[in-house]
Amino acid sequence: MSKDVVDKIFELGKRRGYFWPSYEIYGGVGGFYDMGPYGAELKNNIISLWRKHFITRYQELNVEIETPVIAPEKVFKASGHVESFTDPIIECTSCKRLFRADHLIEEAIGLRLEGTTPEQLTKIIRENNIKCPVCGGELGDVRTFNLLFKTQIGPYSGSVGYIRPEAAQGMFVSFKRVYQALRNRLPIGIAQIGRVGRNEISPRQGMIRLREFTIMEFEFFFNPKEPRHESYLSSIEDKKIKLLTAENRRKGSEKPEEYTIREAVETNTIVNPWLAFWMYESQEFIKKLGIPYEYQFFEEKLPEERAHYSSQTFDQMVKTARWGWVEVSGHAYRGDYDLSRHMEYSGEDLTVFVQFEKPIVKKIKKLAINKAVLGRVLREKTGDVLAKLKEKEESIIKSISEGEDIIIDGIKLPREAFSVVEKEEKITGEKIIPHVVEPSFGSERLVYITLEYAYREKDERTVLSIPRELAPIKVAVFPLVDNRELVELSLSIRDKLMNRGYRVLYDRSGSIGRRYARADEIGVPVAITVDFQTLEDNTVTLRDRDSWKQVRVDSGDIARVIDEFIYMGKTLEELKVNII
Amino acid sequence: MSKDVVDKIFELGKRRGYFWPSYEIYGGVGGFYDMGPYGAELKNNIISLWRKHFITRYQELNVEIETPVIAPEKVFKASGHVESFTDPIIECTSCKRLFRADHLIEEAIGLRLEGTTPEQLTKIIRENNIKCPVCGGELGDVRTFNLLFKTQIGPYSGSVGYIRPEAAQGMFVSFKRVYQALRNRLPIGIAQIGRVGRNEISPRQGMIRLREFTIMEFEFFFNPKEPRHESYLSSIEDKKIKLLTAENRRKGSEKPEEYTIREAVETNTIVNPWLAFWMYESQEFIKKLGIPYEYQFFEEKLPEERAHYSSQTFDQMVKTARWGWVEVSGHAYRGDYDLSRHMEYSGEDLTVFVQFEKPIVKKIKKLAINKAVLGRVLREKTGDVLAKLKEKEESIIKSISEGEDIIIDGIKLPREAFSVVEKEEKITGEKIIPHVVEPSFGSERLVYITLEYAYREKDERTVLSIPRELAPIKVAVFPLVDNRELVELSLSIRDKLMNRGYRVLYDRSGSIGRRYARADEIGVPVAITVDFQTLEDNTVTLRDRDSWKQVRVDSGDIARVIDEFIYMGKTLEELKVNII
Repeated sequence: MSKDVVDKIFELGKRRGYFWPSYEIYGGVGGFYDMGPYGAELKNNIISLWRKHFITRYQELNVEIETPVIAPEKVFKASGHVESFTDPIIECTSCKRLFRADHLIEEAIGLRLEGTTPEQLTKIIRENNIKCPVCGGELGDVRTFNLLFKTQIGPYSGSVGYIRPEAAQGMFVSFKRVYQALRNRLPIGIAQIGRVGRNEISPRQGMIRLREFTIMEFEFFFNPKEPRHESYLSSIEDKKIKLLTAENRRKGSEKPEEYTIREAVETNTIVNPWLAFWMYESQEFIKKLGIPYEYQFFEEKLPEERAHYSSQTFDQMVKTARWGWVEVSGHAYRGDYDLSRHMEYSGEDLTVFVQFEKPIVKKIKKLAINKAVLGRVLREKTGDVLAKLKEKEESIIKSISEGEDIIIDGIKLPREAFSVVEKEEKITGEKIIPHVVEPSFGSERLVYITLEYAYREKDERTVLSIPRELAPIKVAVFPLVDNRELVELSLSIRDKLMNRGYRVLYDRSGSIGRRYARADEIGVPVAITVDFQTLEDNTVTLRDRDSWKQVRVDSGDIARVIDEFIYMGKTLEELKVNII
Repeated sequence: MSKDVVDKIFELGKRRGYFWPSYEIYGGVGGFYDMGPYGAELKNNIISLWRKHFITRYQELNVEIETPVIAPEKVFKASGHVESFTDPIIECTSCKRLFRADHLIEEAIGLRLEGTTPEQLTKIIRENNIKCPVCGGELGDVRTFNLLFKTQIGPYSGSVGYIRPEAAQGMFVSFKRVYQALRNRLPIGIAQIGRVGRNEISPRQGMIRLREFTIMEFEFFFNPKEPRHESYLSSIEDKKIKLLTAENRRKGSEKPEEYTIREAVETNTIVNPWLAFWMYESQEFIKKLGIPYEYQFFEEKLPEERAHYSSQTFDQMVKTARWGWVEVSGHAYRGDYDLSRHMEYSGEDLTVFVQFEKPIVKKIKKLAINKAVLGRVLREKTGDVLAKLKEKEESIIKSISEGEDIIIDGIKLPREAFSVVEKEEKITGEKIIPHVVEPSFGSERLVYITLEYAYREKDERTVLSIPRELAPIKVAVFPLVDNRELVELSLSIRDKLMNRGYRVLYDRSGSIGRRYARADEIGVPVAITVDFQTLEDNTVTLRDRDSWKQVRVDSGDIARVIDEFIYMGKTLEELKVNII
């Protein structure tokens, strides 16, 4: 890809209605993008594909919910975001501009830092004599800036709320309800597609880093002792995946290594089988956006790079023209961190009771009491003491086995009133806190990446070769010339396709060549042209966006032909069987 | 409907996973609701139906975009929300509780108020000696409370942002880009489906009034001089709609009157034909959710009840069991208010140039200058004076017609150097600010209303008769008993339906009667039961959720049969033709 493909895509995005910076008439605000008519459609199609790929296809495991964007402070105190979701910030003492401290250091002296404290960063800035990159002024001390958008809920001051930076907390806070509604099923994936906000200090890179975007993620809850992954994992165990491990990164390697899924799990390179399973599915999903295996790999985060809740994280990386390898999804093993924290902060029991496959039979010691003997000694106090004995059963058994006196309320009880017996108890299950792995995608970034991989230039024309199923407009209908009969026929074909649910581009203005060019630039996979031959034999021309080849097919059959072209990936040659 | 149907639906919502109050483990926060697995699915289905009904079906007019939830202050200053999007609030001087002042008055003395000033409200409270409803304490003065959720964008303090209370401003701010990307087409509807926040003082009524919800609305832009509505309006002109006009409400009437669409427009009862057109379509949309015509009407807002941007507003009302008539959509004629305000506040030209059908020929007066005569008098100053004459053309023509002297830079110019000629000018079009009508729906409210109208009790069992196309789970598959062969056959039918995109409830536990009951309560339209006869003749039982009737059909044909039942509204009897 040529160097300026990014500029070309952004220019095309604006002109053809894919996307553009928000609030342009007010000078724009960094980190916000609008999706135009075609961009919104492409994004909706990517979301639908994600939903189908991860949820509908695995509906026996995964469900989708929706929780609010705004949450009360308690939620993000429990999740750790109020404390840890921060970036280091530094102010120029002279011009008062604010910068992200680690980026400033990286730009000034090429040092890439993550997980460094504000004090360490300040020290690096002082030692390297780094100045304000805008005015050359002296820089202050590095402090942390919390990336949560803060607000107030309701009229009472002090009732702080935040815009969620991830959808995940909604799934944790409501986990118990979902779990119960689905009749206590584990494993269970709870997905959500919705807006999140991250108040970046100075967002750049166009649609790659936004202050607000649509996240698609799911929290996959399982019993760590019995993950029930085997039938899923075995279906893909020989499939390949490329991993750049933290260990190899430490050694300075930038080259990912290929593993089969089974190898990655058995060597503990990926510490959890479900993490591996969903990473593989994510690779397949990204392939469906038009990004081949060669341009993907997974990079393991170093411990200091990981989010506070994660014990292993892989970023799924895709090669881009301008920014090199860019993260398109994150795969975190969150363990029981979030549920445990919410249990602690809310006081609610978020454990689940899981039944053992077979009940476990355990021998336990029980206290046998001869009430008659006891009654003779205690008389009217017998009832009270018996109640207390029940409570203290364990310590009394201990006293007896160690030959100590048995004393309750200052009364020494007769040893002969007690004996210790062994009983068998059937334990049918136990309470556990499920563990969680989380695949998480940002949809705007996927829109951009899809367009970058779709972008072609051919004979000085632009073609967006978006995968057919994802194209915002699926089919164009053109009357060859602006003739009443051809127009009427074209409109009837358009209506037929619209009624079938297709988005159709109907265009009668300009030469047919210009109309093809316009359709190519928007990324319409196929164009139908109605011409004078149509009036004679009812055939129309189909033109393929990518090959520019044409075939004639019977227009009576057009809906089925378009279905097969768009959704079954057939070539024009394969459709030609329909030709008259 | 019985008195407690609302409680029953909320109980069912929690238990079966439709919806529940958000943040329950933290004691809840008023005005926020989660959508559980079935609720999210139902909501997504309602959104898809809305998109199909208003956008895809009218794709030659309407497009969908997406803009951010957070917007900078300028946007809502221009829109008027910073100033006008307020509710009256009052504090108890004793217990410090806050109340919505107009609701307090309504509850205390039954007076329904809208559009009253804080001073008037304070006066009413004093005159009627209204006290704090909780502690009986003295109430303070009424003030206004702004319902925008406020936040800060980026690290600089003072860079105020708000969570949008409507999606509409996104369409206005980006109108020009969308208009241009779609090649300057009018009329054009720009739709958006997305989250909005309204920081209500004390939200009640469960899912009916939320602090955060998903809005579905479109701004329909048209040229007020040439709205191009005729072909659309004529297709529905005889259709009926019920209106309760502001005039009749003033007279004390609560009874809507029936109009044909044409009558409503021609009598100016609905002031704009597009407003009427989309109101009719909204009525049809709400019918598809299962709410019959009899339980709907449109109520015109009184001028003092209307939002600040509107010159006519109708609320679409639906009858509910507990809250009486409730608004399910708003239809505002926003005129050119928003685009004009954004032009004023941004300084950008948001007008569009519309071509006349035929160019208008206008006679205009032009100044003809004899440069030779002028040159003789002015010599080297000729160039300067000619430039100034161009600027002052209009005033000089006036001077000549009124016989005054022509003086430029203190020099009197010779009258004989000038003559006034009439010329014809072709005007091909003009700049206009498009007008806008806006249909706007809250999707959570529609989820609730759909469930309320779907709720039935039959033989002491609950049945959710959700319209088949909207049901979250479309089909259930049950093996009659837990037998290996029946289970395998059932799973193969389930997989076939899943691959076709269906959400399937597969359940093998409990008696078949209990499983039917469970499916009825979730609202699954049809259940397929595999029994021993299936092993012999390959037929399965289909059971209809609503009639509880059963037929046997060939299982080889099952996908098509289910398609026809769900999407073509066929009855079991009609499907019976497939029986062996």
